[in-house]
Amino acid sequence: MQNLKIAAGQATGDFYGFWFQDSDVYKWLEAVAYALRYEPDQHLQNIADDLIDLIGQAQESDGYLDTFFQLQAPAEKFQHISFSHELYCMGHYIEAGIAYFETTGNQLALTIATKMADCIASHFGPKPGQLHGYPGHPEVELALAKLADVTDEPRYRDLAAYMIDQRGQQTPNFFAEQNDQNKHKHLTLPFPQQPDPAQSYFQNDRPVRELDHAEGHAVRMTYLLTGMAHVARQTQDKELAATCQRLWQDIVKKQMYVTGGIGATVAGEAFTYDYDLPNDTMYCETCASCAMVFFAQQMLKTTPQGEYADVMERELYNGTISGMSLDAQHFFYVNPLEVDPQASAQDPTKSHVKVQRPAWFGCACCPPNLARLIASVDQYLYTVKDDTIYSNQFIANQTDFGNGLQIEQQGNYPWSGQITYQITTTTPLPFTLALRIPAWSQANFQVSVDGQPITATLEQGYLRFTKTWSATTTIIIDLDMSVRTVQANPRVTADLGKVAVQRGPLVYCVEEADNGKNLAWLSLPEQPTFQIHPDTRGLALSQLQSLTTIATKVSAPAPDAPLYTKSTTPVRQPQAITLIPYFAWANRQAGEMRVWLNQD
Amino acid sequence: MQNLKIAAGQATGDFYGFWFQDSDVYKWLEAVAYALRYEPDQHLQNIADDLIDLIGQAQESDGYLDTFFQLQAPAEKFQHISFSHELYCMGHYIEAGIAYFETTGNQLALTIATKMADCIASHFGPKPGQLHGYPGHPEVELALAKLADVTDEPRYRDLAAYMIDQRGQQTPNFFAEQNDQNKHKHLTLPFPQQPDPAQSYFQNDRPVRELDHAEGHAVRMTYLLTGMAHVARQTQDKELAATCQRLWQDIVKKQMYVTGGIGATVAGEAFTYDYDLPNDTMYCETCASCAMVFFAQQMLKTTPQGEYADVMERELYNGTISGMSLDAQHFFYVNPLEVDPQASAQDPTKSHVKVQRPAWFGCACCPPNLARLIASVDQYLYTVKDDTIYSNQFIANQTDFGNGLQIEQQGNYPWSGQITYQITTTTPLPFTLALRIPAWSQANFQVSVDGQPITATLEQGYLRFTKTWSATTTIIIDLDMSVRTVQANPRVTADLGKVAVQRGPLVYCVEEADNGKNLAWLSLPEQPTFQIHPDTRGLALSQLQSLTTIATKVSAPAPDAPLYTKSTTPVRQPQAITLIPYFAWANRQAGEMRVWLNQD
Ligand SMILES: [Zn+2]
Ligand SMILES: [Zn+2]
Repeated sequence: MQNLKIAAGQATGDFYGFWFQDSDVYKWLEAVAYALRYEPDQHLQNIADDLIDLIGQAQESDGYLDTFFQLQAPAEKFQHISFSHELYCMGHYIEAGIAYFETTGNQLALTIATKMADCIASHFGPKPGQLHGYPGHPEVELALAKLADVTDEPRYRDLAAYMIDQRGQQTPNFFAEQNDQNKHKHLTLPFPQQPDPAQSYFQNDRPVRELDHAEGHAVRMTYLLTGMAHVARQTQDKELAATCQRLWQDIVKKQMYVTGGIGATVAGEAFTYDYDLPNDTMYCETCASCAMVFFAQQMLKTTPQGEYADVMERELYNGTISGMSLDAQHFFYVNPLEVDPQASAQDPTKSHVKVQRPAWFGCACCPPNLARLIASVDQYLYTVKDDTIYSNQFIANQTDFGNGLQIEQQGNYPWSGQITYQITTTTPLPFTLALRIPAWSQANFQVSVDGQPITATLEQGYLRFTKTWSATTTIIIDLDMSVRTVQANPRVTADLGKVAVQRGPLVYCVEEADNGKNLAWLSLPEQPTFQIHPDTRGLALSQLQSLTTIATKVSAPAPDAPLYTKSTTPVRQPQAITLIPYFAWANRQAGEMRVWLNQD
Repeated sequence: MQNLKIAAGQATGDFYGFWFQDSDVYKWLEAVAYALRYEPDQHLQNIADDLIDLIGQAQESDGYLDTFFQLQAPAEKFQHISFSHELYCMGHYIEAGIAYFETTGNQLALTIATKMADCIASHFGPKPGQLHGYPGHPEVELALAKLADVTDEPRYRDLAAYMIDQRGQQTPNFFAEQNDQNKHKHLTLPFPQQPDPAQSYFQNDRPVRELDHAEGHAVRMTYLLTGMAHVARQTQDKELAATCQRLWQDIVKKQMYVTGGIGATVAGEAFTYDYDLPNDTMYCETCASCAMVFFAQQMLKTTPQGEYADVMERELYNGTISGMSLDAQHFFYVNPLEVDPQASAQDPTKSHVKVQRPAWFGCACCPPNLARLIASVDQYLYTVKDDTIYSNQFIANQTDFGNGLQIEQQGNYPWSGQITYQITTTTPLPFTLALRIPAWSQANFQVSVDGQPITATLEQGYLRFTKTWSATTTIIIDLDMSVRTVQANPRVTADLGKVAVQRGPLVYCVEEADNGKNLAWLSLPEQPTFQIHPDTRGLALSQLQSLTTIATKVSAPAPDAPLYTKSTTPVRQPQAITLIPYFAWANRQAGEMRVWLNQD
């Protein structure tokens, strides 16, 4: 914030922090905008209004705003796009400004955003003298697509479309061109100069429509896909939509962890190759899981299919919120599926895998990203397309559709599988209500309408109720909350012979705090029986439910046992074990954790 | 060699290559010295004599020789010991000079070595004005210990002992002290400046006698241990010997791959922590396995125990020679136990794991190190202690002990387990002959003396025959050459539920060339039956023997099968598989390979 004050002329000093730090203020502003929708808070709103004023003063008259460049290198604007994050920061402001405008009606918040977008539009585009470029870190594309919706100005959408299709087009590519131009300058800017700036890391080694494998930096890829899916819907671009669908399939069928995590390697925080999903060296950045929610939402808005909402649910209950401690004060960047504190401490190739959530980071992208996701979770409850309301997520809430229709959801999901919908209309209203039944419950669920059990068939993962609704209708669904063991496709060699335990949308894990060391020695029987327990031991959320079952464990060898011996039938002992939801791991003392358990 | 010519004044130009390149010339010279023992070759000897002359001319009058510093930075000698490799290069010369002197009697070869050692002794030591230091890369200690034996000059041994015990003594340590002194200088030398030069990487964060865990760079650690074990024997230093024994146990019981490989991580090419033995990300440098042979040899010379010779055998038949292709033209640095070409190509954290041996390297330490080991393998056949001759390795040969005693070994080891010893004396000679029975055969072997089967008990892994030998005695031993499956200590989580196949000293592996892709899907039954075959398919060594057995293989899922499904009993099909010796892998087209196989 200090950087904004200096840029606004309200303070003096030098730029402090990472060059992309503006974006964290904007993410915070966006989270505030969402929070104010749940609960008005005049004090908080005043602070945010002041922040908007400050941002407005820091913004230059042509709309440009990036405090790093304004304070540090005003002559170098838009000349280092590969790593400058200028478009990234402005994209985050645009998102925040839209959210704040929509919540509070603060017109300045939106004006700053449109001025910014106009500034970008004047610098980037196909005309001579313009930069034929695209951001190093996608984000502004999805922000511009949102801005087009809010302002009803197709030019913002067209700018997003330009940047999407310009990506990977030129030879030499845009980043290489800029690098060449910068060679003569004596620069001391802090961001890396890419030796080879056209590469899969940036998703710019070929045109995006040619991609059939999600590649490179995972957050960059999914932010890009979010913008692509939104623009494809806005412009009715079937080819672009097909590209999004192809890459969606690649991610969810070949590159996604059972927790929803993406980014199999720390090197470039990136996707690697199909079915490469190591559990103890991966990246699985919290931001990447947040981005998968954004991408899923865009896919869902275009084509209502339960599959998109299923992945969204997987992310919301596992890979995103695992990034935050139960006290909401500590955060993970990296969300591993298997940790051993000794490995994190003594194997430098696993030093990025933390066993406890630090309080804050030098690079603070994940916490505010998670905050804005959690604050905006109501956006993911329903989508409306044509005459159908789709219920996508189960979260107790009351939603007013503005035309005399109110839908209330009640329940204790994900701990209970019974969800009650009360649909109330002030006047008779014809429409279709489509309720998602998650894939994991489609073989076994019950549904009743006003107390009468009904038999219904699923279409694309949804139960559809078409009628003229009047007064109040009560629909109760009961999902299959039995604990299930899940296996990975055998092409995932990391999980071969292993199972993960799930109940409802939750992935469970074992921790050393409950089960002792050497979790690799545990093995589940082929048909384990689980008990469900309310669990408060050391964990802050009192409603959390843990599982217990009987496993077997390898008997410990003598301390000086040899490394290699003639093979024998392993000696195993029964052992009662406890599993807790994956999102709740690492809230006690540091220790081993694993999601995938051996199976006898 | 060009660098030596320039230093000798026979050519002009600049230093070329890595700063520690002198050592490769010396390793080559050492290999030549050993080769000339098998087979005199006057042409080769003339070339080597000329090289000795050249080295003598390149050496400075005070004994100093390091062409990098002589040509590049003559004022900076001995001022960057942590990474300069001056002592490393001179150590390698001393080893080569000794070997060449011993083979050919070339006195200059030895004089250069003693002048070098005297130069080092004048610069390093406890006296005021001397450097209270030790090498960044241990090597000179073991070379000085050898020199003390050859020259019968204890001062060389004392210098080695000084460097061993000085290691990790001072605070701030020696490297930090030198770094501080160098701060003011404007240096452009190519080697890294360590930010924190006292660390486990260098084995200098505490005195070596306090170590109880082999740590840091694996080659550095084992070269240091080789010198320590030698000096401990020379000086009868029980405490130092106990340190060597402790670290030996740590390596062979907790940090060594089944192939003999050491160095579990690419980060620092280093040891990590006990039982951390990942099969697809490790380093397992060829040089480190060579160094384990050197270390084992010193341990064996001090205390004749079969265990040391067993490890030596494990290295000689697996982890060392796997570094070289069957045509001896291509070399591995890194010797993995599991490779997938896709992982090496597309996961940057596995890019150090090559799937085919390159012809040569920028940094060429391994090939000449392996060359000198192979050329000197006769040194590992027998050790003599007091009145006992120990036979440590089985290699067909004829050895003349110089006192009228000759021992001839015949056989086709490791393909056959029958070894025939013919012990011939010109006059009656009382001594004990101790024949090693490898640990893997101790439960099942036969032995006959002059055709009479005898029952004998083992002492420390050796069969002892004490008598007055005369004329010719024939002893035949028959080892257990049945194929065996081996399991790792369950603390090695990477190998849990897996077995390795061994026959005699050889570790076997499966390759894609024989067994198709997806080797992870193969599983051996609990009691597999193996057939043994002479095997020449695509492999140059005609006497190589492969194994076949019936395994099962996971049925391939449909190409678009989902990533995660409810767990079911896996569908497996029988599949005949072929295993080849590990050392012979990667001699055909690039493909998957693995040593540890799943077991049903
Ligand atoms: Zn992040
Ligand atoms: Zn090497």
